[in-house]
Amino acid sequence: MTKFDEATQAIRVDDGTYDVCIDPGYAIGGPLNGGYLMAVILRAAVDASPFEHPVSTTAQFLKAPVPGPAQVRVEPLKAGRTAAFARATLVQDGVAQIESLITTATLNDVEPVYAEKSAYDMPALEDCAKLPDPKPESGMTLNAQMELLFDPPTIGWLKGEPTGRPESRAYFRMAEPQDPDPYVLALAVDCLPPVVFSAGARGWAPTVDLTWHLRALPAPGWLTLLGSGRLVVDGWFDEEVEVRDSTGRLVAQARQLARVGRG
Amino acid sequence: MTKFDEATQAIRVDDGTYDVCIDPGYAIGGPLNGGYLMAVILRAAVDASPFEHPVSTTAQFLKAPVPGPAQVRVEPLKAGRTAAFARATLVQDGVAQIESLITTATLNDVEPVYAEKSAYDMPALEDCAKLPDPKPESGMTLNAQMELLFDPPTIGWLKGEPTGRPESRAYFRMAEPQDPDPYVLALAVDCLPPVVFSAGARGWAPTVDLTWHLRALPAPGWLTLLGSGRLVVDGWFDEEVEVRDSTGRLVAQARQLARVGRG
Repeated sequence: MTKFDEATQAIRVDDGTYDVCIDPGYAIGGPLNGGYLMAVILRAAVDASPFEHPVSTTAQFLKAPVPGPAQVRVEPLKAGRTAAFARATLVQDGVAQIESLITTATLNDVEPVYAEKSAYDMPALEDCAKLPDPKPESGMTLNAQMELLFDPPTIGWLKGEPTGRPESRAYFRMAEPQDPDPYVLALAVDCLPPVVFSAGARGWAPTVDLTWHLRALPAPGWLTLLGSGRLVVDGWFDEEVEVRDSTGRLVAQARQLARVGRG
Repeated sequence: MTKFDEATQAIRVDDGTYDVCIDPGYAIGGPLNGGYLMAVILRAAVDASPFEHPVSTTAQFLKAPVPGPAQVRVEPLKAGRTAAFARATLVQDGVAQIESLITTATLNDVEPVYAEKSAYDMPALEDCAKLPDPKPESGMTLNAQMELLFDPPTIGWLKGEPTGRPESRAYFRMAEPQDPDPYVLALAVDCLPPVVFSAGARGWAPTVDLTWHLRALPAPGWLTLLGSGRLVVDGWFDEEVEVRDSTGRLVAQARQLARVGRG
């Protein structure tokens, strides 16, 4: 069991209740990363489902849970022949922290009828760049769990040279040896610096809600994360993340609605 | 009050319960259009919210409700300063039909910080084409409620000439005089023929779940619906619909996960 598997473990207490322990190692400053928290919820939801894979997940981020014990409550809504629907809630100290609707199914590894090629050619791995390590006092513990190698212009904001468009693109893998799976993908769709940093914004950009679809099981190796946004207005922005595996296959599609930071 | 306003009316019975009447005029063959049903749910959810606009809606289509009385049950989850979260369920004969999570906020009409232009230039209205009127026995009552003028290649499948890519693009307005609003947008994001028809598929393509974001309040006039898909595999496809208003502004973004029809 990898560190990530352990940090996302959900232990069945009874029908519909799972004990989890929120790990301090996935923090982005004060709060915990939303993708990590979705992975925790998905462990419980998939365990409670007759199917194997979380093909669709929507999460509303009501509150910011803290490291330590919590529960996931799963309410099955309907199970059909090809898909099952459930509501799952992350609860801490009796208070709902994240509300989610999850659709599960079992994906088969078959040839696609139609597969759009990636609209963007990433530079080679060796031409990509890391972010500087965060200062220990920043509380950015998430950074140590994963390796992100960025398409250089999309971290130009670091040097005061944002591209002027909401965008963020990087290769991704876990820092420890771990093949990507649907839970790693849940983390991956929400681990880029906010795309609005490239449009000149800074500061904590809280996710309001996020929906992602698992489209195929990822092959081992690096994932490619292509993040973009179409509209930044009145404090709101969209962040779209397309994830491709090492073979170029589309494995996840996500869109979140978030607030522009004030900082 | 327009016919659509009436067909989507939700009458408050008590805290959290709304009576609705599902209108037979929004059917696509046997089932009712998912966008219309979302509009009904949103009427209740917005009435129960301290905010004015449904900025994010996720719906899981558990069952196919039938025309006639039904209820929407709204469970407020959290209301903050800028957004409120709620769960809303469409219930008929005591059985949940559609489960949804809705985020509400109040959008202000201000200049965007960043706005991506449409990636596609639609042909002029007069160069677009209608679908033939459905036969009365088809049960396609929805078609009479709206006007859709299609980018011609994206209905080439009608003549046995699909483009080979999942795509569907059209101008949209309600058939009766009605300015677009968030409820009309709920209908608009799910009213195109399935994008997979252009990739060669046919038949009833049921939506499994759909998430859409309201990004701005639409100006009066025609809407432009740009539908596409990236992956058709193992019976699953994604349908992405971007909606722009008559001024070119991005007003809604939707993605649904659906099943390919059997023929």
